[in-house]
Amino acid sequence: MALIVQKYGGSSLENAERIRRVAERIVETKKKGHDVVVVCSAMGDTTDEFLDLAAQVNPVPPAREMDMLLTAGERISNALVAMAIESLGAHAQSFTGSQAGVLTTERHGNARIVDVTPGRVQEALDEGKICLVAGFQGVNRETKDVTTLGRGGSDTTAVALAAALNADECEIYSDVDGVYTADPRIVHNARKLDTISFEEMLELAAVGSKILVLRSVEYARAFNVPMRVRSSYSTDPGTLVTGSMEDIPVEEAVLTGVATDKSEAKITVLGIPDTPGEAARIFRAVSDAEINIDMVLQNVSSLSDNKTDITFTCPRADASRAVEMLKKLCEVPRDENPTVPVSDTPADAAKASMQPGSGASESAATAQPRVLFDDHVGKVSLVGAGMKSHPGVTADFCEALRDAGVNIELISTSEIRISVLIRDSDLEKATRALHERFALGGDEEAVVYAGTGR
Amino acid sequence: MALIVQKYGGSSLENAERIRRVAERIVETKKKGHDVVVVCSAMGDTTDEFLDLAAQVNPVPPAREMDMLLTAGERISNALVAMAIESLGAHAQSFTGSQAGVLTTERHGNARIVDVTPGRVQEALDEGKICLVAGFQGVNRETKDVTTLGRGGSDTTAVALAAALNADECEIYSDVDGVYTADPRIVHNARKLDTISFEEMLELAAVGSKILVLRSVEYARAFNVPMRVRSSYSTDPGTLVTGSMEDIPVEEAVLTGVATDKSEAKITVLGIPDTPGEAARIFRAVSDAEINIDMVLQNVSSLSDNKTDITFTCPRADASRAVEMLKKLCEVPRDENPTVPVSDTPADAAKASMQPGSGASESAATAQPRVLFDDHVGKVSLVGAGMKSHPGVTADFCEALRDAGVNIELISTSEIRISVLIRDSDLEKATRALHERFALGGDEEAVVYAGTGR
Repeated sequence: MALIVQKYGGSSLENAERIRRVAERIVETKKKGHDVVVVCSAMGDTTDEFLDLAAQVNPVPPAREMDMLLTAGERISNALVAMAIESLGAHAQSFTGSQAGVLTTERHGNARIVDVTPGRVQEALDEGKICLVAGFQGVNRETKDVTTLGRGGSDTTAVALAAALNADECEIYSDVDGVYTADPRIVHNARKLDTISFEEMLELAAVGSKILVLRSVEYARAFNVPMRVRSSYSTDPGTLVTGSMEDIPVEEAVLTGVATDKSEAKITVLGIPDTPGEAARIFRAVSDAEINIDMVLQNVSSLSDNKTDITFTCPRADASRAVEMLKKLCEVPRDENPTVPVSDTPADAAKASMQPGSGASESAATAQPRVLFDDHVGKVSLVGAGMKSHPGVTADFCEALRDAGVNIELISTSEIRISVLIRDSDLEKATRALHERFALGGDEEAVVYAGTGR
Repeated sequence: MALIVQKYGGSSLENAERIRRVAERIVETKKKGHDVVVVCSAMGDTTDEFLDLAAQVNPVPPAREMDMLLTAGERISNALVAMAIESLGAHAQSFTGSQAGVLTTERHGNARIVDVTPGRVQEALDEGKICLVAGFQGVNRETKDVTTLGRGGSDTTAVALAAALNADECEIYSDVDGVYTADPRIVHNARKLDTISFEEMLELAAVGSKILVLRSVEYARAFNVPMRVRSSYSTDPGTLVTGSMEDIPVEEAVLTGVATDKSEAKITVLGIPDTPGEAARIFRAVSDAEINIDMVLQNVSSLSDNKTDITFTCPRADASRAVEMLKKLCEVPRDENPTVPVSDTPADAAKASMQPGSGASESAATAQPRVLFDDHVGKVSLVGAGMKSHPGVTADFCEALRDAGVNIELISTSEIRISVLIRDSDLEKATRALHERFALGGDEEAVVYAGTGR
């Protein structure tokens, strides 16, 4: 007998019919003799409807009240799934995040779990009940206010509960039946993986795979909770995410998959004085604005004018804010920025004031610093523990793109990943070329569920 | 500076537009220098939608989960009103029933408030905030489970909070702008009352006036919290419910109004042996089924066969259940019913088995007990403290109905009320006749808001 935590996403709970189907699956698991804890997201479009209502009454809704509003969504789905389970003759009890002991920091809208004390859940399990816990929500330990965990919060709730309850497995149900070697909508012979290590899954999540949220995988790795990616609409065992890459024998280590990402934009600051602290000044400002930076490139300084360029990528949604912010940054004299002491005089700084550029074709040789913005970019990444032990992967990677006629704009790598930034129009072509070159495909055509496009 | 509790009903919060309007009214009250605590019902049809969803996943949903589901409705409206208030520049903080310290019994779906400990609400008030409390919900003191207060629960939340916070007034907002001498849809010159005593309001609520829920008025009377019935759509001061009838000078005591009620059905059990304990047996069974009985009549026993008839009224929604139950009651030998020891033999009881009758015209003289059911009845009541000091009101009442050609089927009275059961088709005619006879009308035509029909 195992203890299994199951998490169901919003599309699996879209209406009463789907809720009943999910309940059947939960009761089946219970009937096999397992203890079951279920974490539910909000039904279908509930969250969007709430956001829409909130925007109608207040364009800038206060975060605390937003959390009070949004958490209602998971309570609704939670209670309905509990009712559906009871109608099948099993016993269920639902818990809010607070009742389940999900304690968080106080940051509304994006709180972090600081502790999970699931005493009431454990008691109900001991009584033979199926436990339902509202995902995405917790309670601030100090103020007792309701908080939400931000994007992917329900996955994180599920993993955190699995860790606290010492569960044997945390199953993440959605409309995707596992982790594939590439997006099956782009690569038709993409192969479903049976297992993948935490590190590889982390790299895939980091470079744009939407299957699991980075944060939940980090949590699962830290507490060594095996995760299983499964579809609510099939009995396929899905993909098991478990174990360290270090445990994979070198001979068996392979390349895992190709990930694609069109969610980023590229920002370039041209003509920055090549003196210590200039890069720090830019990235501190971006970080203070809570914008996540992904790839970074600093060009070799041109000796003639002692200036350099810095290029980075960040989420498209944040890009215009970043551009605005960088523009303002250069209007502030440098000695007013306490974190980066620099020697330039205020007059120099004023002269060096940056202005947004009007296109990617601007020359870097102009005297005035400029900010360029480009959102027609895409990122393609190859991930796999085998990269460590197989020399020449980078060379093969670049040749595959060259043969496909794809130009590389930026490269960034980790121990088990190579990512390149290319034109977004080349993204599918590049993905197929890499998948083919590294022989990642299966013999069969990948199954794509109707919902995969969500 | 006063402390005012305001309660807004679901139709006042139907959409974003109405929520903004309610927020403006709340902020206006705050700007007058008052402290404000607001209790919100769920938006418009939210509760019905939840009930519908629940029925789809489980025809008999467990009560605990139903409470978890339904309470989401008040959290949603609560948070949205708080956001709307903040958008007007005032400070608001929302509280769940649990956060506001509304402690209840454990009976899910119909819990009673046992204590209110609004420490957090008081703190927020002291900080100058407008406090929003989710109505209709509380928390079970022992199990910490979420409970709901049943019908009219939000009114009760508002009054209970007003009592616990020692508020100066509890304003109940809906689409009705006060308490009228009769339903303005029936009597066109019905007059709005400026004040009414708790006792009179209780009698009106008990006999079918939908304006205030009986329970909230009982609570307000017990804790001496002045209530004010107002419309969300006008600035009219409404009707103040306050003070004891005893405080009204005899000379000023008048008749308050006429109430109509079409929500009951009449059940008659014919041919009951006229021995001690027979009536108790019937009413204990009805009470055990949690069906509320209103009017009761037992006929004088006919000497020839020593049998009697009992007639009572109960909510129409419960009537078919009551009939079923009474049928079964007589299939059980009487000595199996420990609460009512009777001397009849089991053979007698079996012979006396009751069967539902097929019409109201059945003769009471038949040998077999029968259950008759009639839902074409209506109740009209006259209420007023003046009844105590003015003799002849009953005679005037009956004459008014006679003159209007209305037949009386049942009469029941209290110190300050006369109610009669009549044909439902006679209800409007009887109401107008009584209103006219007791000169309750005003000179102007009553204002009826669009929403009054809800």
